[in-house]
Amino acid sequence: MKTKVSPAVIKRLPRYYRVLERLSRDNIKKISSKDLANMLDITASQVRQDFSTFGGFGQQGYGYDIDSLKEELSKIIGLDKQYNMIVVGAGNIGKALVSYKGFKASGFNVISSFDIDEKANETIKPISTLTEEYIKENNVTMGIIATNQEAAQEVADKMIKSGIKNIWNFAPVDINVPEDVVVENIFMSDSLFVLAYRMNERGNN
Amino acid sequence: MKTKVSPAVIKRLPRYYRVLERLSRDNIKKISSKDLANMLDITASQVRQDFSTFGGFGQQGYGYDIDSLKEELSKIIGLDKQYNMIVVGAGNIGKALVSYKGFKASGFNVISSFDIDEKANETIKPISTLTEEYIKENNVTMGIIATNQEAAQEVADKMIKSGIKNIWNFAPVDINVPEDVVVENIFMSDSLFVLAYRMNERGNN
Repeated sequence: MKTKVSPAVIKRLPRYYRVLERLSRDNIKKISSKDLANMLDITASQVRQDFSTFGGFGQQGYGYDIDSLKEELSKIIGLDKQYNMIVVGAGNIGKALVSYKGFKASGFNVISSFDIDEKANETIKPISTLTEEYIKENNVTMGIIATNQEAAQEVADKMIKSGIKNIWNFAPVDINVPEDVVVENIFMSDSLFVLAYRMNERGNN
Repeated sequence: MKTKVSPAVIKRLPRYYRVLERLSRDNIKKISSKDLANMLDITASQVRQDFSTFGGFGQQGYGYDIDSLKEELSKIIGLDKQYNMIVVGAGNIGKALVSYKGFKASGFNVISSFDIDEKANETIKPISTLTEEYIKENNVTMGIIATNQEAAQEVADKMIKSGIKNIWNFAPVDINVPEDVVVENIFMSDSLFVLAYRMNERGNN
């Protein structure tokens, strides 16, 4: 795993995992690369090539063992670890992320919420208390930006200053970060615009 | 625009649009394919190839005129139209989508919220009132699924039965739809898993 894995392969990892989870829930034990490829709408050779990037997962005879493949992928993604996260932004998106139980089940724990409004209450902390000490003491490794576009860069700067190196950004704007900081964006309008394009392409009005 | 455009090109359309919006806000008038490519982290020849798919946008001399390129892309995506949408699911994600003003500014209007709980109130309608008549009368062309995983398929079926052909799905599950229905998913955990992978790859703990 020392060679740089391409972004396209990395993006397929959660999709593989999602499909394997469903198969596992349905109590299916084995799957061929061809069937797995069909479920992801890619080719079987793409599946084999992706898996060989990670050393191959030994498709024997009929196919891959679903539970062990799921476990391998889980380790590769890092789902065998726990992540403490904080969220900045106490709007509806921020609230949704705090209350959503699905992430916790995968080891992602939103341990506290901050807001740029300095009105602290029992559940939302003022952003002035987001310090290096807080991040260290609580072993926070990820920060979520759930503010509006205007506040996003300032919040990112504050997170980075306090020692956060991994940012999940929901604000609809690209943020600038130093080379050693990882940012993953969720641009919801990108997805909505793709829906609009495909709707118009089909004439689905 | 009769030839089928590849999903990769379609996915880049909103990214081009986002970058052009920012340039336009910053009052920049022209951009070369090389600079545009850099902003999207792709190659200049990719930019030219993408644009030629849509008939080319006439890069003259130094580069593209930003405002006219933005307008062309806006028409291609379909941002010159209005879309009436309904959302099913009155949790935090549903609430965030109803209250977010950014979509409205682009012509996407969430006109009402439904919930599978039959407790109607002033703002949330019971799903039993999501009928073919309602969809027609209100000219609804898109449905948003903001329920949990378990309810998503049932909600999709109900939407399709009432005449909705375009679905934006936030539930963390693939839904099955007839051939003529367009679905665009936002799987938030996919993005979170990519962040985890990249964090571990970098050793950013």
